[in-house]
Amino acid sequence: MIKAGIVGATGYAGNELVRLLLGHKEVELSFLVSRSYAGQPYASIYKNFMKFVDMDCVGDELPGLLSEVDVVFTATPQGYLAGILTEQMLEKARFIDLSADYRLKDVEIYEKWYGIKHGSPNFLPEAVYGLPEMNRNGIKDTRLLANPGCYTTCSILTAYPLVKEHLIDPNTLIINALSGVSGAGRGAKVQNLYCEVNESAKAYGVATHRHTPEIEEQLSYAFGSPVVINFTPHLVPMNRGILVTETASLNEGVTQEDIKAAYTKYYGNEFFIRLLDGGCPETRCVEGSNFVDIGFRMDERTGRVILMGALDNLVKGAAGQAVQNMNIMFGFRENEGLMTLPMLP
Amino acid sequence: MIKAGIVGATGYAGNELVRLLLGHKEVELSFLVSRSYAGQPYASIYKNFMKFVDMDCVGDELPGLLSEVDVVFTATPQGYLAGILTEQMLEKARFIDLSADYRLKDVEIYEKWYGIKHGSPNFLPEAVYGLPEMNRNGIKDTRLLANPGCYTTCSILTAYPLVKEHLIDPNTLIINALSGVSGAGRGAKVQNLYCEVNESAKAYGVATHRHTPEIEEQLSYAFGSPVVINFTPHLVPMNRGILVTETASLNEGVTQEDIKAAYTKYYGNEFFIRLLDGGCPETRCVEGSNFVDIGFRMDERTGRVILMGALDNLVKGAAGQAVQNMNIMFGFRENEGLMTLPMLP
Amino acid sequence: MIKAGIVGATGYAGNELVRLLLGHKEVELSFLVSRSYAGQPYASIYKNFMKFVDMDCVGDELPGLLSEVDVVFTATPQGYLAGILTEQMLEKARFIDLSADYRLKDVEIYEKWYGIKHGSPNFLPEAVYGLPEMNRNGIKDTRLLANPGCYTTCSILTAYPLVKEHLIDPNTLIINALSGVSGAGRGAKVQNLYCEVNESAKAYGVATHRHTPEIEEQLSYAFGSPVVINFTPHLVPMNRGILVTETASLNEGVTQEDIKAAYTKYYGNEFFIRLLDGGCPETRCVEGSNFVDIGFRMDERTGRVILMGALDNLVKGAAGQAVQNMNIMFGFRENEGLMTLPMLP
Amino acid sequence: MIKAGIVGATGYAGNELVRLLLGHKEVELSFLVSRSYAGQPYASIYKNFMKFVDMDCVGDELPGLLSEVDVVFTATPQGYLAGILTEQMLEKARFIDLSADYRLKDVEIYEKWYGIKHGSPNFLPEAVYGLPEMNRNGIKDTRLLANPGCYTTCSILTAYPLVKEHLIDPNTLIINALSGVSGAGRGAKVQNLYCEVNESAKAYGVATHRHTPEIEEQLSYAFGSPVVINFTPHLVPMNRGILVTETASLNEGVTQEDIKAAYTKYYGNEFFIRLLDGGCPETRCVEGSNFVDIGFRMDERTGRVILMGALDNLVKGAAGQAVQNMNIMFGFRENEGLMTLPMLP
Repeated sequence: MIKAGIVGATGYAGNELVRLLLGHKEVELSFLVSRSYAGQPYASIYKNFMKFVDMDCVGDELPGLLSEVDVVFTATPQGYLAGILTEQMLEKARFIDLSADYRLKDVEIYEKWYGIKHGSPNFLPEAVYGLPEMNRNGIKDTRLLANPGCYTTCSILTAYPLVKEHLIDPNTLIINALSGVSGAGRGAKVQNLYCEVNESAKAYGVATHRHTPEIEEQLSYAFGSPVVINFTPHLVPMNRGILVTETASLNEGVTQEDIKAAYTKYYGNEFFIRLLDGGCPETRCVEGSNFVDIGFRMDERTGRVILMGALDNLVKGAAGQAVQNMNIMFGFRENEGLMTLPMLP
Repeated sequence: MIKAGIVGATGYAGNELVRLLLGHKEVELSFLVSRSYAGQPYASIYKNFMKFVDMDCVGDELPGLLSEVDVVFTATPQGYLAGILTEQMLEKARFIDLSADYRLKDVEIYEKWYGIKHGSPNFLPEAVYGLPEMNRNGIKDTRLLANPGCYTTCSILTAYPLVKEHLIDPNTLIINALSGVSGAGRGAKVQNLYCEVNESAKAYGVATHRHTPEIEEQLSYAFGSPVVINFTPHLVPMNRGILVTETASLNEGVTQEDIKAAYTKYYGNEFFIRLLDGGCPETRCVEGSNFVDIGFRMDERTGRVILMGALDNLVKGAAGQAVQNMNIMFGFRENEGLMTLPMLP
Repeated sequence: MIKAGIVGATGYAGNELVRLLLGHKEVELSFLVSRSYAGQPYASIYKNFMKFVDMDCVGDELPGLLSEVDVVFTATPQGYLAGILTEQMLEKARFIDLSADYRLKDVEIYEKWYGIKHGSPNFLPEAVYGLPEMNRNGIKDTRLLANPGCYTTCSILTAYPLVKEHLIDPNTLIINALSGVSGAGRGAKVQNLYCEVNESAKAYGVATHRHTPEIEEQLSYAFGSPVVINFTPHLVPMNRGILVTETASLNEGVTQEDIKAAYTKYYGNEFFIRLLDGGCPETRCVEGSNFVDIGFRMDERTGRVILMGALDNLVKGAAGQAVQNMNIMFGFRENEGLMTLPMLP
Repeated sequence: MIKAGIVGATGYAGNELVRLLLGHKEVELSFLVSRSYAGQPYASIYKNFMKFVDMDCVGDELPGLLSEVDVVFTATPQGYLAGILTEQMLEKARFIDLSADYRLKDVEIYEKWYGIKHGSPNFLPEAVYGLPEMNRNGIKDTRLLANPGCYTTCSILTAYPLVKEHLIDPNTLIINALSGVSGAGRGAKVQNLYCEVNESAKAYGVATHRHTPEIEEQLSYAFGSPVVINFTPHLVPMNRGILVTETASLNEGVTQEDIKAAYTKYYGNEFFIRLLDGGCPETRCVEGSNFVDIGFRMDERTGRVILMGALDNLVKGAAGQAVQNMNIMFGFRENEGLMTLPMLP
């Protein structure tokens, strides 16, 4: 049994961490930090948790709280953790950061795409990118885990085996992604009001979305040389879910069987990846769960392949993957606390 | 460990039974009957269950299948179970019927409101109405459990303590209810198409909805004499959820404290009822769970009280309550398999 | 041809006024006041109006702008117009106020329900409540028109003929209302975010909603003596639409024909009211239009009648009714600019 | 004043034709054919049209009805018009076919992608593809107009100027498209039920969607040689709207200004095309209107350009474009009946 604290507990990702950790047999919740709601009962903000959570939110006194816990989840804005992290803090507890602060190894790329100065680039070398299906071994011993972005997780996992096996030319990858609105967070902004989002679809952040360099960095590792892609995110009117559709040119002679074999090789034993045999993934089929559903279709007319992946942005795209990483870091069963079934409709 | 079968497994209530029973430690699924999808893998219909359900649907051969199981859930249209049930069948397995066939004790009322002939009124006397919070003792030993309707469960539980304690005049009860679309089932009907339901609200079944006599019968038992009410259901554009708003005249001298005390007396120890202290229930706060959230507000200007209840029509309004009843019938912990947390957003 | 200005032009009601006035043959738009967006092109806020609106928003300099126009629409928060209105202003232009400032004749009731001090109660006597179907004659000559609330318009019109003709006991009226989210305005509040509203339903403002005294005042005029009612509003996940369901006790001997006759008597010649013969109104059937669809159903079992009305909260519930009132005030055809057809789906 | 008939009047496109033609000054509706609802009042199916449409649906007696009208709109399944069209019919009235029957010049391609035999390929040579912004002159005199598909209209118009001017390599075009659910029609199918579509997103028809060859044929004309593309449609939970996101490699040396100039050259005078200066189109901004909103963004990192287009699938993607074509065919003002403003929210 370990003890965990959450900073940013009243955002959607923080709330999802609470849901998952409540169902985790090896974890006890120690504190829930929320600047906006300090002093208020957590279950008065998230009334779904009545009868389950009896704690009040606390204000941000992170260094002081660290002695109480084994692990801290920071579901906070970019720059928060990088701005306060110290060696002493890392000696007290292990950190799983859901922001982008430690995802990119190159601090210049971080500062360029995020438009802020990195507060503690000295910790970048030891930070581990937490995508277990690509990088399980590195995760086990880290003190500082960089939990991947939602678009990123879906985009990378959908393409990874084909890039790694050189079945496609990764520099032809065109990634289009759809996201539910919870990905935009719980901040009070006009653009996220019900009447601004409902009954509409749009692209945004075209050619400038911050998850682009994160996808490129990871696919470059897989490919063995630099990969540059197009990534275009879209907002669609639903609460949860990310769907990516990736199109790429197949290398000469690659067959349907080759693609299937590559997916099976890398994911055949991965509990949280479900390979669809010919079908197209639907976000509703993964809602509430830590699964990524992946399908593909060859297009012989064009010599391209279309890859499709679906996940729940708050689970495998945020809190669920964070718990999966925690399980690896602390030696728990990897799917402990993550057996929640997708609920449909 | 008991064995369970589901008839009508590919409807929304059937699918929800599968979800809940998969998470139940004392139950093993033996068969999934679906006329429409016989022979097809269940997880090809409900792809959310990939990696969890490995069974094919079977056609309707109920009597033959009974020897395999301890309990059968019939999530079937009205008239189905009444049309086939026999003493021999009841000797082989216990039945939990999610249709209305055995909910109303008076066969004439059933035939009038449902417009069909009852196929086996001889079993009505032994059938037990399965609303545990009102009727737990009767449930334990029955062979034939009539699982309440979704509107009914919410309507009755919201009013029950006040009717039982004679704090309101039950004949002044005006019940308005809102339902998500899953309550209309999974049949291919134009009226339930996305574009016919989305972005609209309407009342339907006004003064004729079949859950009316069921509510009246149960409230009459609680009150001690016949109760006649108005019940008006509405369809609103969301997948799940029922919200009832009930208005009734307070009896002379009844105070806020009296009402609170009545709710506490009957529900203070009920795990699946959450009493809101002054707030208004929201369907999203119970989604996916077996909870009923109940709130109320006095109106001193009019001498009336407004009662509000919310539940998930597929859980406490159908499959969850069926599992709760099964737990009581077989002596399991009452919330076994029903600890799924409401997920928000 | 008259000239019109709009204050609060970037709220949802303001935007709807722009849409309707653009299609009005007798009106030219002179200015669009918006504090939040002063100096910005209106069509950059509401991109639906590209190619149609070429004006910039202006800050709030209302007295100075008045000389340019014949009529001003104030789609502003409660208290705004009451706080600035003067005799000089009223001499320059006629005012159609979409707020509640001049709807209630009794300033004490206003101050009690709205919790603010009324800034110019001296103008209350001359203000005219603008519900044309009840009060057309009074509207023609007023300088200061109080445009009714959205819930109010729907609630009153649905009950009015039956109250006026003494077919029901108005003190037994229980009004339940459902509203789309645009009724909550375009302010950046957490509670109106997509993920807070979508897939959920709730009651709010129970026993305290500010439209209650407005409904009561108007129904009291119709009835000839004071009427006290219960009004319970609900929020449901859709952009537009109000649906009211009203239940009341029928007076002795009242028949279906009596009710039909009363509706026909008052509304048979009303263009904007459509009487459904036995059906239940749906909000989607009035979306985008100035119609109110009204239906009813008798319940002989309970001696009550259930009345149902549907309108678009931004049209007949706000901007459309304001234009209808303007048409009457300036002697235009009453449905000029209001012939937009409901669009479905 | 001309007379028009609609076949398939109770589908969503048929219903939208009714809405638009009711607001058209030069057209009178003569008949509304609907097999499913023959004999029923049209306004009982589409209650939004109460007070506007007083006609009953008629069964399918098309040849006999032709003498009454100048133009017939066939909003019917693929194969219907091709199966019955004769020279005599074409002599009686002009046809605007909203199906795919006469869109593709090559009958083999039609039969391969649609999987049905073409009933009257003899009329293919004279049929004119009705995309006015590309092909206005051809439309004027035709007797048989093939109204383009919804995805097609949006996909082609978004790319056309850049293909025509050889600014991009059209064989690198990757088109991803999102559609609202009304595009799937009003047929009673499980897959289009509210609870199957709501809160989910998916791709479908990957590499096999029938609009692919239509897009390719038209872009090939524009380019001057054969174009082969990838087109991937997606279903998202909203009633109306199509959004396309197209990615293509820029030809050497092409600048932002070149692209802007090309759009301006072809669309600067097109009423129904709105060029966004740097922004991303949103489907809600065109809802209910005949507009296509187009934006683009260069990606210097990858040497590609991302093009985005939005339209309302039932208006510019079906009925609106049909009316636009009719206006050209009969010499009316091209935007007559099509000035309805997009309504938001």
